[in-house]
Amino acid sequence: VVQLTDAEESADKGEYRHYMLKEIYEQATVLQNTLQGRVSKTGVLEEAFGTEAKAIFDQVEAIQILACGTSYHAGMIAKYWFEDWAGLPCAVEVASEYRYRKTVVRPNTLFVTISQSGETADTLAALRSSKESGYLASLTVCNVANSSLVRESDLRLMTLAGPEIGVASTKAFTTQLVALQLLVIALGRRGCLSAEKESELVAGLLQLPELCKQVLDLDGPIQQMSEAFSEKNHALFLGRGVQFPVALEGALKLKEISYIHAEAYPAGELKHGPLALVDSDMPVVAVAPNDELLEKLKSNLEEVQARGGKLFVFADAKSGFSNDHGTTVLSLPHVPLNIAPIIYTLPLQLLSYHVAVLKGTDVDQPRNLAKSVTVE
Amino acid sequence: VVQLTDAEESADKGEYRHYMLKEIYEQATVLQNTLQGRVSKTGVLEEAFGTEAKAIFDQVEAIQILACGTSYHAGMIAKYWFEDWAGLPCAVEVASEYRYRKTVVRPNTLFVTISQSGETADTLAALRSSKESGYLASLTVCNVANSSLVRESDLRLMTLAGPEIGVASTKAFTTQLVALQLLVIALGRRGCLSAEKESELVAGLLQLPELCKQVLDLDGPIQQMSEAFSEKNHALFLGRGVQFPVALEGALKLKEISYIHAEAYPAGELKHGPLALVDSDMPVVAVAPNDELLEKLKSNLEEVQARGGKLFVFADAKSGFSNDHGTTVLSLPHVPLNIAPIIYTLPLQLLSYHVAVLKGTDVDQPRNLAKSVTVE
Repeated sequence: VVQLTDAEESADKGEYRHYMLKEIYEQATVLQNTLQGRVSKTGVLEEAFGTEAKAIFDQVEAIQILACGTSYHAGMIAKYWFEDWAGLPCAVEVASEYRYRKTVVRPNTLFVTISQSGETADTLAALRSSKESGYLASLTVCNVANSSLVRESDLRLMTLAGPEIGVASTKAFTTQLVALQLLVIALGRRGCLSAEKESELVAGLLQLPELCKQVLDLDGPIQQMSEAFSEKNHALFLGRGVQFPVALEGALKLKEISYIHAEAYPAGELKHGPLALVDSDMPVVAVAPNDELLEKLKSNLEEVQARGGKLFVFADAKSGFSNDHGTTVLSLPHVPLNIAPIIYTLPLQLLSYHVAVLKGTDVDQPRNLAKSVTVE
Repeated sequence: VVQLTDAEESADKGEYRHYMLKEIYEQATVLQNTLQGRVSKTGVLEEAFGTEAKAIFDQVEAIQILACGTSYHAGMIAKYWFEDWAGLPCAVEVASEYRYRKTVVRPNTLFVTISQSGETADTLAALRSSKESGYLASLTVCNVANSSLVRESDLRLMTLAGPEIGVASTKAFTTQLVALQLLVIALGRRGCLSAEKESELVAGLLQLPELCKQVLDLDGPIQQMSEAFSEKNHALFLGRGVQFPVALEGALKLKEISYIHAEAYPAGELKHGPLALVDSDMPVVAVAPNDELLEKLKSNLEEVQARGGKLFVFADAKSGFSNDHGTTVLSLPHVPLNIAPIIYTLPLQLLSYHVAVLKGTDVDQPRNLAKSVTVE
């Protein structure tokens, strides 16, 4: 009798039709795992970053994030957090672009890489080339222990997502966001982040598992919504602020597994070009938490409606959107703003999953793509 | 008899079927105008920036660029130049995103806005809100004298494109690139830009009018190429490095006037998702000057070919691309690298123009769009 290792067991699909669906549903648990032992009720426990972290964190004055694909979207979200909460200037760049151009490194910049596999070729090459560029230190947010990125970085914070088999990343992305938020807090408390704010952010993070479950329970209506996409060739995803990268990630999922040409825009850019594409054949998806940008987003969406575009809005129950001809609203529970990008990602994952199933594509192994991009 | 003013006369379509085509052909002249009196044979004449410029330029340590739509693409290109040649860290952001989030301003940062009309609502609001954010000073690159951006900025460098009537921006974009390059040189010579390098860059700029004419003479083959797009609903545009924003701008033109869903990617990101979209129905356009990224780009394009994608490559005559089944090459003259983003924009403008004419859209006034976006 051969015993399965833990990794092999959790790589079983279980009751789920596809690995991707299983991995979407694991998120309540793995988000919890990624928080476990790293936060108290009121703050981040810095030991999570290892004993060498303190001396480095005390010196950090800026952040440079490098990543590819889905991990790049996680980095884009973290940029908003670093600048808003920690007062640290943050630049984010696609690794395959960064490594081939001359960049200017400011003093005491922490070099942060993000990768599920820890073997992404361009990200790894960027890390290697950074060693001679005058960065303070390197930190990786990664899901695979003992991967090249983990071994070659000065610091690491593991996402505890467990093995991810589906090529389209789901649980790796949301756990990356948790890990990045812990980093933002750990650095921010050395600057402008008050103990009160830290405690508020942590309280939000601790609600993740429960809110995650509540949102995944909306699977039925999301599956119903997916029917409107299965015959379409295009889609536009809109968000503002920290929800713009969420829209990018939602569009990427739809591209990857349903082969629908979905593109995301920051909603304010609509009028500068993409609005020309909008007609009744172009479904437009919007992510609309009840934040300070809600009114601006609404006025952008009215322009879409005025041009006959079909709207699909993932909105806070209190945001005042209602179903009418041309608009389908999926109401989400009210969530703390600091976890909204994580929570709003979930229904977009389910949407792309159901569209792909309707289209009959190979959900877990979409054409042309590999799980870890270990070539340049 | 009523005398036409200069503006009205040059707003006449003349022999051209559309304003857009006229404006594309005016580029050799207006690029020349934008250089005129601002460069000697060997360097930039700083008087172009006004008498107050010197005191400000002497202090600049970083750049923040804000713009929307096409102007944002010009800003993205300038970022590469600022960091590569001038050694100045440069951030570029869509104005509608920037103004609604908390940002960190580093000491002695020059706030640069880019806008054809000078009345773009989000860009103007970003300028106004910047006044209390601790920037060193503001500079606008703008095409309309006496516009709000020009009046409200500390410094200005006018693009001398003349009135632009077509909603899809063409000559405004390329003259913005010239103006931005003059700014990069003026600031760079205070730091790491040698007199030798400055002289080399200016020599490149002075070749613009002649090379621009040579490339516009390729109109015939480009028109022929456009036939392959007229029945398509999608397109992918690829570039690497400074040519990535050129690809973005090429995709935006096709969106705006032909309503084809064109999207641009940095070529290195293909494998992280969009490659799933590629099949024989998805034309893929690539911009390939003979630069140090050429070999990397070629290997990206081989992946497209392997998946049955039809390739359309705008390439340096010496780049070694050849026509074969599945690949159509348009050879461009060899151009100095500092003007390559300007020159490679031209055939993409012509391509989108001819596709739109074939599709019978309203080229000068595409549906849903306005020339100046003066609302948020």
